[in-house]
Amino acid sequence: MKPKVIVDSDKMRMYKIILLVVLVLLIIPLLTHYYLSKVSVDENFSSEQYINSHPWIVQLADVDKLKGAELKSRIEELLRIKFSVTSELRELEAKRQHVQSEIAVLNRRLEEAKMEAGKRRNELDRLQISLQQAKVAEKEAMERNTPRLGRPKPLAPLRNIPTYPVLPEYNSKTPSNFIKHCQMDSCFDYSMCPIASRFYFYAYALTAYANQTKTTFSENLQPTSNIIKNLHEILRNNQYSTRDYLKACIFLLIIDDCEPTKLAQITKNLPHWFGDGRNHVIWMSCGNSGSYKEVLQSDYIKNFGRAIVATETIFKDSFRYKFDLVVSHWKKALPSGEIWTHLPSIVPAKRKYLATFLGGETDHYVQSELLKIQQDDPQSFVFQFSCNIPLYQGKKPTQSEENEVNAGSYKGEIDKGGKNSDNSANGKLSSLCENDLLRTRLLIDSTFSLIILPPEDFLILSSEILQLRLYESLKYGAIPMIIGNRFEPPFAEVIDWSRIIITLPSARITEIHYLLKSFTDTDLLALRKNGRLVFENYFSTMEKVAETLLATLRTRIGVPPNPYKDFASPSVFNESFVPLKLDTFTVDPEEEENLGPIEPSYPSISFARNYSTIFLQKYEFWNTYFQPFKLYPYTPWDLTMSSEAKFRGSSLGFRPIAGGAGGSGKEFSQSIGGNLPKEQFTIVMLTYEREQVLMNSLQRLFGLPYLNKVVVVWNSPQSPLPDLRWPDIGVPIHVTKAEKNSLNNRFVPYDVIETEALLSIDDDAHLRHDEIVFGFRVWRENRDRIVGFPGRYHAWDLNFGGWLYNSNYSCELSMVLTGAAFYHKVYSYLYTYEMPSAIRDKVDELMNCEDIAMNFLVSHVTQKPPVKVTSRWTFRCPGCPVTLSEDDSHFQERHHCINFFSQVYGYTPLLYTQFRADSILFKTRIPHDKQKCFKYI
Amino acid sequence: MKPKVIVDSDKMRMYKIILLVVLVLLIIPLLTHYYLSKVSVDENFSSEQYINSHPWIVQLADVDKLKGAELKSRIEELLRIKFSVTSELRELEAKRQHVQSEIAVLNRRLEEAKMEAGKRRNELDRLQISLQQAKVAEKEAMERNTPRLGRPKPLAPLRNIPTYPVLPEYNSKTPSNFIKHCQMDSCFDYSMCPIASRFYFYAYALTAYANQTKTTFSENLQPTSNIIKNLHEILRNNQYSTRDYLKACIFLLIIDDCEPTKLAQITKNLPHWFGDGRNHVIWMSCGNSGSYKEVLQSDYIKNFGRAIVATETIFKDSFRYKFDLVVSHWKKALPSGEIWTHLPSIVPAKRKYLATFLGGETDHYVQSELLKIQQDDPQSFVFQFSCNIPLYQGKKPTQSEENEVNAGSYKGEIDKGGKNSDNSANGKLSSLCENDLLRTRLLIDSTFSLIILPPEDFLILSSEILQLRLYESLKYGAIPMIIGNRFEPPFAEVIDWSRIIITLPSARITEIHYLLKSFTDTDLLALRKNGRLVFENYFSTMEKVAETLLATLRTRIGVPPNPYKDFASPSVFNESFVPLKLDTFTVDPEEEENLGPIEPSYPSISFARNYSTIFLQKYEFWNTYFQPFKLYPYTPWDLTMSSEAKFRGSSLGFRPIAGGAGGSGKEFSQSIGGNLPKEQFTIVMLTYEREQVLMNSLQRLFGLPYLNKVVVVWNSPQSPLPDLRWPDIGVPIHVTKAEKNSLNNRFVPYDVIETEALLSIDDDAHLRHDEIVFGFRVWRENRDRIVGFPGRYHAWDLNFGGWLYNSNYSCELSMVLTGAAFYHKVYSYLYTYEMPSAIRDKVDELMNCEDIAMNFLVSHVTQKPPVKVTSRWTFRCPGCPVTLSEDDSHFQERHHCINFFSQVYGYTPLLYTQFRADSILFKTRIPHDKQKCFKYI
Repeated sequence: MKPKVIVDSDKMRMYKIILLVVLVLLIIPLLTHYYLSKVSVDENFSSEQYINSHPWIVQLADVDKLKGAELKSRIEELLRIKFSVTSELRELEAKRQHVQSEIAVLNRRLEEAKMEAGKRRNELDRLQISLQQAKVAEKEAMERNTPRLGRPKPLAPLRNIPTYPVLPEYNSKTPSNFIKHCQMDSCFDYSMCPIASRFYFYAYALTAYANQTKTTFSENLQPTSNIIKNLHEILRNNQYSTRDYLKACIFLLIIDDCEPTKLAQITKNLPHWFGDGRNHVIWMSCGNSGSYKEVLQSDYIKNFGRAIVATETIFKDSFRYKFDLVVSHWKKALPSGEIWTHLPSIVPAKRKYLATFLGGETDHYVQSELLKIQQDDPQSFVFQFSCNIPLYQGKKPTQSEENEVNAGSYKGEIDKGGKNSDNSANGKLSSLCENDLLRTRLLIDSTFSLIILPPEDFLILSSEILQLRLYESLKYGAIPMIIGNRFEPPFAEVIDWSRIIITLPSARITEIHYLLKSFTDTDLLALRKNGRLVFENYFSTMEKVAETLLATLRTRIGVPPNPYKDFASPSVFNESFVPLKLDTFTVDPEEEENLGPIEPSYPSISFARNYSTIFLQKYEFWNTYFQPFKLYPYTPWDLTMSSEAKFRGSSLGFRPIAGGAGGSGKEFSQSIGGNLPKEQFTIVMLTYEREQVLMNSLQRLFGLPYLNKVVVVWNSPQSPLPDLRWPDIGVPIHVTKAEKNSLNNRFVPYDVIETEALLSIDDDAHLRHDEIVFGFRVWRENRDRIVGFPGRYHAWDLNFGGWLYNSNYSCELSMVLTGAAFYHKVYSYLYTYEMPSAIRDKVDELMNCEDIAMNFLVSHVTQKPPVKVTSRWTFRCPGCPVTLSEDDSHFQERHHCINFFSQVYGYTPLLYTQFRADSILFKTRIPHDKQKCFKYI
Repeated sequence: MKPKVIVDSDKMRMYKIILLVVLVLLIIPLLTHYYLSKVSVDENFSSEQYINSHPWIVQLADVDKLKGAELKSRIEELLRIKFSVTSELRELEAKRQHVQSEIAVLNRRLEEAKMEAGKRRNELDRLQISLQQAKVAEKEAMERNTPRLGRPKPLAPLRNIPTYPVLPEYNSKTPSNFIKHCQMDSCFDYSMCPIASRFYFYAYALTAYANQTKTTFSENLQPTSNIIKNLHEILRNNQYSTRDYLKACIFLLIIDDCEPTKLAQITKNLPHWFGDGRNHVIWMSCGNSGSYKEVLQSDYIKNFGRAIVATETIFKDSFRYKFDLVVSHWKKALPSGEIWTHLPSIVPAKRKYLATFLGGETDHYVQSELLKIQQDDPQSFVFQFSCNIPLYQGKKPTQSEENEVNAGSYKGEIDKGGKNSDNSANGKLSSLCENDLLRTRLLIDSTFSLIILPPEDFLILSSEILQLRLYESLKYGAIPMIIGNRFEPPFAEVIDWSRIIITLPSARITEIHYLLKSFTDTDLLALRKNGRLVFENYFSTMEKVAETLLATLRTRIGVPPNPYKDFASPSVFNESFVPLKLDTFTVDPEEEENLGPIEPSYPSISFARNYSTIFLQKYEFWNTYFQPFKLYPYTPWDLTMSSEAKFRGSSLGFRPIAGGAGGSGKEFSQSIGGNLPKEQFTIVMLTYEREQVLMNSLQRLFGLPYLNKVVVVWNSPQSPLPDLRWPDIGVPIHVTKAEKNSLNNRFVPYDVIETEALLSIDDDAHLRHDEIVFGFRVWRENRDRIVGFPGRYHAWDLNFGGWLYNSNYSCELSMVLTGAAFYHKVYSYLYTYEMPSAIRDKVDELMNCEDIAMNFLVSHVTQKPPVKVTSRWTFRCPGCPVTLSEDDSHFQERHHCINFFSQVYGYTPLLYTQFRADSILFKTRIPHDKQKCFKYI
């Protein structure tokens, strides 16, 4: 008890002293104030007053008034008191300090305990959410009774040729009529093309069949011309080609000798004719319209049995709609390779001439009306209906023009057949005049190119000349204007030609000027671009024509295309090697916000819509995305359910906010919500010899919700050091060895990537979890766009023209760098397989611009700008070494890239956007009982 | 000079006093501190030390040591000094106060001058920008040489029928072959349909032509049946109908008596047959397939000359592709009115049965395979191929079912012809069995509905029964699955049926189960919704069928539709009345930011794409927007130019940021930038008896950039008070009198609205200029969506099911209220003319929900959520009276609206979004030399 009392009395003294000091401190300012105010204001000021008002002065003065000895003893007394007080105080101070330090320690512990508890609570919350999610997922798994569809498996070869239901009994009664009205339903044998198997075709390797009898038929004979030989070569290399006729759905026969009697012999001698030519496609190229006429309009068609005829020349009375095929021009198609190098720019919208035509005589009425129009406005129109008057008089073709024309014709081989035909069958009417160079020159200068149907025969719907004119017009960016609206464009059952050509009945020839002038620049550019896209994708080269022909048939038959091949992703580690684990690492305190459930990895559902896309999105795949040749596991264009469906029978996978009640704060963070079922994303990181930077970046991903997997692309030729310790972040980290050090590896569709959403981040990027989760949520609403953080734009060079790359802070942007951006896996396929290889080569050449290339690609496909999220612009980790992107040469390269890529595409697909995406309650004043969507963003 | 000296010496004294006081104040705390520290720490403390260290105590003590008189004189001296000091101080204080107040006044003036200067500078900046803009605009006006197209003007009637180029000379040689291969180019006379004139048709009013001879032909005779009579009535009321045959492009003849010999007589006696039936459309409805066969497949077709045949029944060998037309079922079509009341909900995706068929016997192979499938899984399939076995045994139809079936048949008139035909022509095969009720019941329960083509004749591509089955399937939301892929669906040249029906060759019947199961719920919902949209828009009623038939022909001929009619907007003022002007008003200081140029009003360019949309966007207008019937002056789907085009020949109207160099801050605010040419917006305000609130709101619009006009819709029956003073805000304020007090007036397409962009704001809304300008910029990138400020969402009622309206702060929203939102004028047309009238009626009934209705409409058209901009949620002016929207009943009504509108659309079109749009540099740390996009947002 005693020490306590002491302490108490000590305290009392202490208090007295403190009280005194406080008193003094309080009084003196008051005093000073009083004095000062008196000095300036009070008139009745006196020293008496002064002393009266300051009693402590008197007290002190009293001390001095005492006598010497008394004073001394008193002072000694005071000193004693003072000494004891001092020593007590010293003890006291020591105790106080001790107690305080104890308190500090305890407080620290308390804080730690609180933090720990907070973390644990967060973790528990997370676990609970995750548990809930797991339960829902389990329930869903139980309820799901429809097995998901896998990729179509290849079909085992048929053992025998089926007979049903190809021949209805009354067929034999009227064979001629039956063949004449062949339709897929009645003439095609679907049993050879099961929907769940792959599509295969068998190409007869010869054209010299006419010389063969059945007994001596052999595949080793020579085809009749180099072009056909070449086409055979191309077909053999096609993905759908098979030499096993039992697997084939389609049998393809190329014919360029159209002598009718020979044809009869050929078909009868074909080894897999099955008696009636079922499932055969006869790709005829007779050159001469006259020959076609004889074969197609005469009874010789009977020799073809049930075969589908694919030609450039068709006649109204023999063409079987929805059965026969119109093929685009192909004999003088471009050689495969970089097609864009042959094509002029899409811009400007208006060219030197508004409309042109160069050829022989045509319909006299049309001709005379056009000449009248030309007379009224010779600046805008060039119409020439004679083969004798040279157009560009005196001007010699330049070397580049010569080259261009030569590149156009098929590898030097001159297609005499095609040209002679003009004169023999159609007389001089609408002939090409054989002046390829002049035509080319004029087309490059023409906004519209007239294609006039031969007037003499209303039954001609298409011919080789017309198809060549169409081909050339599209190639040189002259918008085809077809005079005579009976024209049958190629592959019209899949290609929407109303977006590409203008078709006009010849009766409207007098209205042509008015109509042509009515098109806005935007329309002209759209028409020209659509034309270029169709040209590039569907018939620029012989390969493309063959591919399009096969795809058209396959679409008609209803069999999905082959799926894209993912890239193998060999691990950078040996099979036996187990990388070391980093035991513990600190997690950033900023990551303590609960951002979503931690769930087991689940891949995106793939190939679930193999058949429905063929029906439902046929138009878009052919005419908007231009991707009918391959099957995608999923696309950014997959459809969305209406919002009530998930509450009425289609809840599978959906995670509505608060079960559908909606909300903010906790409710929002617990569920992904939105219009689509739950999903995850994959992080792809490209790394090159910065192991510690990489490890730090990986560590930071610990506990990131919705993360499916991390794929590290190891660009360095050296494998990672075996003593490198890898963090365990709760999801697999797959480190794949790149074949070579290329920035294009960033966008390779590796097979280990199992989600639609990819987050591409630089190995030194430092994004917070909340930013990533928010970015993911925004991407889910903009699946076809790049959604990310660092915004950039392309600026017009006001001094020299052309584009400049600009990385300044700006209020209008057109690119989001893939150093920190989400994008759909489909773009990995497109970047790697479909984008012109010149762009990938440029990226490798400069070791730069892969992000610009991706922005070009995505904007080209979508015609939309990217989406920038949150206020973050920079994302490098502080203290990381400065990357090469800071150099000036780096910028010079990037200027160059934008201009080069624009040249490849023929226009600049980048578009501007003037806003960015923030979370809905960002910087919003809300009631106290409400929480925001995210703490900081 | 003297006063100055005094002042100086005064100051000196003052300084001394102040110095003393400061000294004391400084020393005392130091002292206290010193003392205290001594007390606790210093051992060598003594009073000597104390006194030594405090010399001023000694000084004071000295005073007391003096003798009395000396002391007195000294005190008196001190008092004198004190007095003079005091008085000097007093003067000094007075002067100081005076000087201070002067300084304050001067400062205030300086501030005012600065503000004024700032304002002036802003104004000057604005003027300069505006001047620049004006110069650019003038330059553009000079350069523009193509006249913009106006709306097509009606054509003057032709005086004589032209002859060219309808009859090619060799026509007479082979007339039969010519007619057989009729195509638009050869058989149609385009000269009767100039592209720049309106499209008109002339309908022959009779069907009883057979009884007429040429001499007695009269239009007063009775048609043969009530249905035909009704159709004639409908056609007469059609927008394109004319009784002046000289104006007509198309002549329409309805025939329901197909006796071949009569037909020949009819056509020859038609008053406007022109000898060869050019431009005639013969809409045949023979009922009986047998009759069709006789007419169409026999030589009697020759009687039709060049006429186009439009029927439900077609045969492969007589159907002229791209000339004749397949018409949808129409005889038992719904009566016009609220179609949605007859249609089941689109959701759930999967219904009771996966696929069903109910009818007579059909192809034996198909039948037996289907029965096998049914046997394997009787829960999913109902296939019945006999008319004798009742399906729902014992169950009597409910009253509502009876009603539904009765509503389906055409106003009680029973179409015996159609039904008898099944048995006579096609035997029992594929007949309907005449059990409408059972079929209806089953279709409502079916996910897919099988439509099996008659197996006996491969030439039948379509028949009345098939069309009826298609009609019923779409009506009841059973996805049509056509077995036999030769089926020719109606209006296939404009409607993309691959999005609606699944077509399967009968050979694939064994694969049907696998295929059907492969469709995801999303696919099923999409197919069903597409089907419903086509049904509702193109052939639910007889009016729609007729309209679609005409639109298909018009599209084929290439003539644009009639433009939408704008509403007249009569001014609320008498013609003679001039409203009083508010002389001056204060402008909010917050509006001082320069947000853009103040330019003269210019309207959006309208009807510039009359012809190009027919070609370029034909597919979208028919199949995505379902709006082919009217010509829009502009649409939110107009195309965008690529970004370099504006620097290479197509700069007209574009205002790139800093001329193309891009930037932020001032550069950004000076130009609208983006991907589209400059434009303005119109503010539409609905007001009802709150004149002062309105005036305040109008005032605040002064100086708002990009504002074209303000349209005030005066909902009150009382005209505004004549003494009301209207502010002059620099743009016209048009006050239009509403016909009645309706919230639907908010979305009326008034003719005074001349811009694409509309900003709808409540009369009491208080939006800042920067917010409006930013909202406008965001809208320009999202022209098809609602872009605005107050976000709301629809939440699922977890207790009772159904939707609840929710206005809480939330992280996911699905509506943006039109109390402060931008939208495209096209939605005004759609809201007013195309949206089911039940919705507008509901809005009028409740005086509520017009904003929800608009959100439904826009999301229905776009399949996208709205866009919320900036952090603003509320926008009422402070102090304005609380509106009725706060009531609880108001909320109850809004819950009801969402559920009711969902019922009307058959699904809930609203979709969720989890982000909002902010300006790009909002809350971003940027370098000091840079400016943000906006100061506050």
